[in-house]
Amino acid sequence: MSARDVPTNAPARVPTPQPGDPRLARLSLNQRTTANWSLREAVAGCVAAGLGSIGVWREPVAEVGLEVAARMVRDAGLRVSSLCRGGFFTSGDPIGDNITALDEAAALGCDALVLVPGGLPSGDRDLAGARRRVADAVAALVPHARERGVRLGIEPMHPIFAADRGVISTLAQALDIAEQHPPDVVGVVVDTFHVWWEPGVLEQIARAGQRIVGYQICDWITPLPADTLLSRGMVGDGHIDFAALTRAVSAAGYRGDVEVEIFNADVWAAPGSDVLATLTRRYVEFVEPHL
Amino acid sequence: MSARDVPTNAPARVPTPQPGDPRLARLSLNQRTTANWSLREAVAGCVAAGLGSIGVWREPVAEVGLEVAARMVRDAGLRVSSLCRGGFFTSGDPIGDNITALDEAAALGCDALVLVPGGLPSGDRDLAGARRRVADAVAALVPHARERGVRLGIEPMHPIFAADRGVISTLAQALDIAEQHPPDVVGVVVDTFHVWWEPGVLEQIARAGQRIVGYQICDWITPLPADTLLSRGMVGDGHIDFAALTRAVSAAGYRGDVEVEIFNADVWAAPGSDVLATLTRRYVEFVEPHL
Repeated sequence: MSARDVPTNAPARVPTPQPGDPRLARLSLNQRTTANWSLREAVAGCVAAGLGSIGVWREPVAEVGLEVAARMVRDAGLRVSSLCRGGFFTSGDPIGDNITALDEAAALGCDALVLVPGGLPSGDRDLAGARRRVADAVAALVPHARERGVRLGIEPMHPIFAADRGVISTLAQALDIAEQHPPDVVGVVVDTFHVWWEPGVLEQIARAGQRIVGYQICDWITPLPADTLLSRGMVGDGHIDFAALTRAVSAAGYRGDVEVEIFNADVWAAPGSDVLATLTRRYVEFVEPHL
Repeated sequence: MSARDVPTNAPARVPTPQPGDPRLARLSLNQRTTANWSLREAVAGCVAAGLGSIGVWREPVAEVGLEVAARMVRDAGLRVSSLCRGGFFTSGDPIGDNITALDEAAALGCDALVLVPGGLPSGDRDLAGARRRVADAVAALVPHARERGVRLGIEPMHPIFAADRGVISTLAQALDIAEQHPPDVVGVVVDTFHVWWEPGVLEQIARAGQRIVGYQICDWITPLPADTLLSRGMVGDGHIDFAALTRAVSAAGYRGDVEVEIFNADVWAAPGSDVLATLTRRYVEFVEPHL
């Protein structure tokens, strides 16, 4: 267990599951895990590895165009588990771009927009104020989200990002906001990297219940890589108890896809097909048995 | 406001307070802020800058010997605001060394032992179990702490350290443990770096009341320096609202010293006297008016 245990040299403790293996039906590749692949390559990679779903990002979708992207994913027989990302609610006028993101999600046949809360504006130390702006922005998006049939997934972020990326720091806090709205419109994204340390996290997952819009997995590794944005580890390389968290998510009633989302320079440097082979092994070892 | 705003080039927005300035009476230098100074140099530096107190570490105390260290600080007319550090409760048999640390604190005339909870043992993913061991170890130390007249200060640590250094992640969680014991024996250490992001932190500080054993200050800067252990910023360089936190600590009834504790390679590379000049300026600008 170390930061050097990257996909290319990870010990294979279970055989790589083959395409058609039913255990992979709910596994989704968040395309930032294979950041060097285009959308077309990522779709092909998911199909080749036997995954049922893909989590897409707006930028690579825009590169090929929304209609082409939607057709590409549909023709491959994949679901779109989530669209990343909306949010960034704490400065400027964020509503217009989030309206567009909701339209994009609907066009992609995706019912979950991941909301990154946003950080403190430059020079601003009013964390409570920034948190209120997140709640206000979510409320402002509810009518359009309902109209489009896309759920807003508030993603609480590890406190390492409280200053510069996500002022919503706990699942409890995200739920406090989500619960002001109907559960079929506003929910939360449970990302193991962000919430694994949270006191009472299992109880908060139970509280979330039908509000779990997405379940994202990656590991917390030490020593933490130097760039905090790229500090996520391959599932099983680190300290996170995936069994406990996954059982809780399942017990809460979540039946959606499980997205592997890893921002890590070592992972990105490895061939995408190697990354997919490793993550499917790790998924069937650490996560799938507990769903 | 940037990570490059190190003491040597920080803009001096207020004049450096001079020795004898009553605003410095409660300011304490945690000696790890000037890590390249010996205990003797740190004591001399505090006196020269007009501080009333010093927070000492066990290792530099051991270098000169406990009795010499105690005399050195006493002869300089300084208080010892805290002894760093006991704790590391999550693996091995931690009680014996913490008993010794309590004896050392008493010999130094210091009534506060800072407890770093400890991280997950290697290969262990049972965070809840590690947290229970912290509570058990604190309970085991209570009789000796009471006998020595030294308070146990549980230090909740930023979740960035949950895996490898401190499994107690919030002030709320530290208080849940502390409240199982009398307030004159077990309390908490409020360190701005660790708790600034915590939802409801001001309410938790109020809840802490007389249990605040120590108040440590430094800033959260972005981008976060690569080494997480050395990622702390000079007060005023970052995102923390010292006014709000300090007012809350004061309103809770805390009348003890305010320790500046900064682990940062740039700060350590600067001459100690420059660091002290900067931190006294920042203290009177950002903290002291709110005490």
